[in-house]
Amino acid sequence: MRTHLLTIGDEILIGQVTDTNTVWMAQIMMENGFHIASKSACGDTGESILQAVRQASENAEIVLMTGGLGPTKDDITKKILTAHFGGSLVFHEETYSRIERYFEKVGRPVPAIMRDLQSMLPDNCDILPNRVGQAPGMWWERDGRIYVSMPGVPFEMQDIMENQVVPRLKMRFPGRPIAHRTILTTGEGESTVARRLENFEENLPENIKLAFLPTLMQVRLRLTGIHDDPVFLEKQLDEEASKIHSILPDIIYGVEKQTLESVIGDLLTAKNLTVGTAESCTGGHVAQLLTSVVGASAYFPGSIVAYSYEMKQKMLGVSPTTLERTGAVSEETVREMVAGAIPALGVDIAVAISGIAGPGGGTPEKPVGTVWMAVGNREKTVAQKMIYGRDRQKNIHMSAVGALGLLRKFILENYA
Amino acid sequence: MRTHLLTIGDEILIGQVTDTNTVWMAQIMMENGFHIASKSACGDTGESILQAVRQASENAEIVLMTGGLGPTKDDITKKILTAHFGGSLVFHEETYSRIERYFEKVGRPVPAIMRDLQSMLPDNCDILPNRVGQAPGMWWERDGRIYVSMPGVPFEMQDIMENQVVPRLKMRFPGRPIAHRTILTTGEGESTVARRLENFEENLPENIKLAFLPTLMQVRLRLTGIHDDPVFLEKQLDEEASKIHSILPDIIYGVEKQTLESVIGDLLTAKNLTVGTAESCTGGHVAQLLTSVVGASAYFPGSIVAYSYEMKQKMLGVSPTTLERTGAVSEETVREMVAGAIPALGVDIAVAISGIAGPGGGTPEKPVGTVWMAVGNREKTVAQKMIYGRDRQKNIHMSAVGALGLLRKFILENYA
Repeated sequence: MRTHLLTIGDEILIGQVTDTNTVWMAQIMMENGFHIASKSACGDTGESILQAVRQASENAEIVLMTGGLGPTKDDITKKILTAHFGGSLVFHEETYSRIERYFEKVGRPVPAIMRDLQSMLPDNCDILPNRVGQAPGMWWERDGRIYVSMPGVPFEMQDIMENQVVPRLKMRFPGRPIAHRTILTTGEGESTVARRLENFEENLPENIKLAFLPTLMQVRLRLTGIHDDPVFLEKQLDEEASKIHSILPDIIYGVEKQTLESVIGDLLTAKNLTVGTAESCTGGHVAQLLTSVVGASAYFPGSIVAYSYEMKQKMLGVSPTTLERTGAVSEETVREMVAGAIPALGVDIAVAISGIAGPGGGTPEKPVGTVWMAVGNREKTVAQKMIYGRDRQKNIHMSAVGALGLLRKFILENYA
Repeated sequence: MRTHLLTIGDEILIGQVTDTNTVWMAQIMMENGFHIASKSACGDTGESILQAVRQASENAEIVLMTGGLGPTKDDITKKILTAHFGGSLVFHEETYSRIERYFEKVGRPVPAIMRDLQSMLPDNCDILPNRVGQAPGMWWERDGRIYVSMPGVPFEMQDIMENQVVPRLKMRFPGRPIAHRTILTTGEGESTVARRLENFEENLPENIKLAFLPTLMQVRLRLTGIHDDPVFLEKQLDEEASKIHSILPDIIYGVEKQTLESVIGDLLTAKNLTVGTAESCTGGHVAQLLTSVVGASAYFPGSIVAYSYEMKQKMLGVSPTTLERTGAVSEETVREMVAGAIPALGVDIAVAISGIAGPGGGTPEKPVGTVWMAVGNREKTVAQKMIYGRDRQKNIHMSAVGALGLLRKFILENYA
């Protein structure tokens, strides 16, 4: 079944917001065996929306729309689609109750707009309740085509897609069994990983495909298989996945929905260890990643962000002589940051980072993007230098992910 | 003149690559007074490309295409378009000479593919030379419409757009001036902001439109105007923008490309103040936002992430009695965190946050999403309680943005 993804709203069209919704939607649709035929974006006018819907229906049997469902005046998708499919807007009790409960919880009166606009829904579609926001999704079927309209807020769209749209579509279009294995790597770029898997990829069975999904500092490998016999397919995918594990043992850190942070959390929990961070250029990003995991309080007591020389001395005991002699971005400094953080935070293991995030502050010896990181316990500390690029936000993120990679290896190597 | 942006290639369609080209293209086109009517992406097959070009020409007079011009076999845009417009591919001497000079410079022989495929160009279009790469752009005019095909490599596309496509289009369509104002708010949701601007919006001049662009905890307001007289238009937009400023003085924090973090950085710098954070549930996210601003080291010496009770006592001097009596998520605790952070970090102002990010840990009195935050200096501390939702990542982000909003107000109110 062919799918078209339609984004409604001037903000995507005119480039004020980068479109990440359709990236996410394409992936989940493909994982579930649907083909992405095309995608488009149109403006906030009735004419543009209708034209876009008409064109979308020329390209695909499933049209998934996002955006234009908020309660403000420029959000007209609902009105336009309802009329287009020959219905009208009526008050939807269940949606209004949901909104009432939300405002009751936060202790504010329900704005009139929530009753007069947000709770008015089409009388000619299935309503897909929004469990994490206010605008529900809508599902129409016309002439063998399915049209779904969802809010453009990413986590609302994702919740509706995962829990309602995808399961419904799979019921509606059973298709051939499709299955996946996702393998997570960090530490090498896409082209290097691709070269190491070249031979493997050439020998893959016809019914299995390999995709590379790179993000900053990480490459996800996704095997997708289609076969009439689901039991055979699962076995086949397990075999191919285990081949990848034996080709890339040094860079694989997890599978499926794991994250580097969650894998580290599991390791720390299993080994009954605690960790803390001493951060300079990352400004707390490593701590934030570690605490993004549910239950992090079991192994994470705290962190020190020491941005200034003074804080590095006062909070972490880095010696003024070291800072003067080698600078804040040096192996000596990050080693002393680890040594200071362990007693200050009362942790078993500490992670330290100091670097030049940029765009300024580089020198010929230490260009922008130079980052020193260290991980250690009371007995031993390992340190490494990385040289990333010129983009501040990317350098910060890559440093944090790099440090987590080093932390994971340190735990595996020192706590068998 | 209406413009359609068409991206050709499976990698954009299936979400392997996030589309940033059309964001850049939309911006440069709009800055030059062209209206973006729609955009789309299609796969690498002849049928998809022709369908997409046909649909694009229904929407706009100018169709700008990127992608599918490399010398590999799956890049068929050039062949398809040339045939579609009734021409054929011929050897293009000038393009081949350019390629020859490039390979001579890098000291490698010219691959045969460069002569046999890359230098074969349509005999029915204007060639737009590529000064920074190998595949030139192509410009067709048919039935009053303009079709431009460019490489998908961002810097090649950008060079061709800036130096050739935009100047040509401006000569061809002098057009009406368009201009924008963006106003940034935080602290109220989209529906509340919309209600406050209802009257204003109804009285907007015909040639000016208002759009609401919400993200978590923030709503951007965008005014877009079109008028023949650019001086009048600028004046008109300034007037309407200043009306918004007088309607929403309490929630507006900036304009155009500013961020809440950068505005706070500017305030701190102007008033020669320093700030630090004492964070529990946000795990360092506030510190990370503050240090995402270039030059943050001028006003940010460091932070303490105190996740455990023990760290709150040891690093921030929160009293065990307070923690026992009121719990870590309480007004008393965040006030003591502020009081402890100021001397510990040696800062003028401290921000403290403690909350229940979830998904576990809630109680009837303190449900998941309950967050206490405080901002203070040596004389005075203000605290507020927020109740967000059930999503951990969302709660963390909303808490951090909420605390930044409180920090901004504290600076404005206490440092005139």
